[in-house]
Amino acid sequence: MRASRAAAGGLRLELVSVLTVNRLSVYLRSLRALEARGVRSVSSHQLAEEFNLSASQIRKDLAQFGEFGVRGVGYGVAELAAKISHLLGLDLSRRVVIVGMGNLGTALARYPSFNAESFLVVAGVDSDPGKTGRKVGRVPVHSRRDLARVIAESGATMAILAVPADAAPAAHAELAAAGIRAVLNFAPVSLPSTRTCRVKNLDLRVHLEELAFFLEDGDGS
Amino acid sequence: MRASRAAAGGLRLELVSVLTVNRLSVYLRSLRALEARGVRSVSSHQLAEEFNLSASQIRKDLAQFGEFGVRGVGYGVAELAAKISHLLGLDLSRRVVIVGMGNLGTALARYPSFNAESFLVVAGVDSDPGKTGRKVGRVPVHSRRDLARVIAESGATMAILAVPADAAPAAHAELAAAGIRAVLNFAPVSLPSTRTCRVKNLDLRVHLEELAFFLEDGDGS
Repeated sequence: MRASRAAAGGLRLELVSVLTVNRLSVYLRSLRALEARGVRSVSSHQLAEEFNLSASQIRKDLAQFGEFGVRGVGYGVAELAAKISHLLGLDLSRRVVIVGMGNLGTALARYPSFNAESFLVVAGVDSDPGKTGRKVGRVPVHSRRDLARVIAESGATMAILAVPADAAPAAHAELAAAGIRAVLNFAPVSLPSTRTCRVKNLDLRVHLEELAFFLEDGDGS
Repeated sequence: MRASRAAAGGLRLELVSVLTVNRLSVYLRSLRALEARGVRSVSSHQLAEEFNLSASQIRKDLAQFGEFGVRGVGYGVAELAAKISHLLGLDLSRRVVIVGMGNLGTALARYPSFNAESFLVVAGVDSDPGKTGRKVGRVPVHSRRDLARVIAESGATMAILAVPADAAPAAHAELAAAGIRAVLNFAPVSLPSTRTCRVKNLDLRVHLEELAFFLEDGDGS
């Protein structure tokens, strides 16, 4: 599959930037919305208008992956969505475990788009015995001690880390040792990617600080 | 303050990239951790080693804002933290309202770093009468209908949008009309920034898709 994805675009996946991949996700979401409304073809200009994107950026991003559009006609909505989905590897199904079923872990277990199409949250674990042995939505919560067994039995390859900062490094090491290949880390501590386990550090406060940076200063006190 | 922040670095704030600002946030978090351990000075190399960052990137980012370090000695930890905090506008206090007190809004109201130093979640609103009139942690939950009044009375200038996608555009318009200047949007729909109200769209699924893209395909099924 990886080979066919690379061949489809004639490019090496590891040379594609994270930002491009993030934009492809956004395009896909926009195309799905158009599809649901029965729209069958769309120009880069229309896509940009409707979803607050840049038309030239759309054309540039899609050009990296080969010829998608027909000049003057635009893109076939369903066809383009299918191609982006394939490029993103979303025609595969990935099983996900959540480590830490506090407020954030619980919210993520219920977050609709984390349990749609290509992703399936198969289990959560927590060190608090009061939280284990029940279900959050459809997600069973196990003891934190059983993490390796839960991963082995569920076939999970991805994990979401929603524990406090001081618990994150140990959990991360255990996930990598148990064969998890990708970790979405919400703990406010930067964890390293390795050759076998990629980490996306997502410290939510960073984005509050980003917004604050660009605010006019009359707004604070 | 904006003028003094700009003057401090001799640059125009609007020319600084979002990615640089995000990295400054991460540096600040790392410096605070060193400070808590009693570390008084640090080189870009040590910072990079300890927090899985790039030393040359650190030097390049900080150079944009003037001379922080002393060659061969490194950076004074407390001094550099204070300068970055000032550059980020974090010596001001921003009041934040949360729209949508479902699982995610509730988690964010309790997220420790959203209620520390420069940010204070002053209120939440929800359209479900069963959720209003109580507190989540220290955050009072009001009726969604009272949003404009809650903003006016609390002096909030920032908002977190944690409603479903179909409810997001109306809530966004109402926030902007009520004088909110910055919105962190967790709804999986891209909302536009305007001259008076900046939006950071944070669709969490985008990051799951990013991780999936870079996974070897043997991992899916």
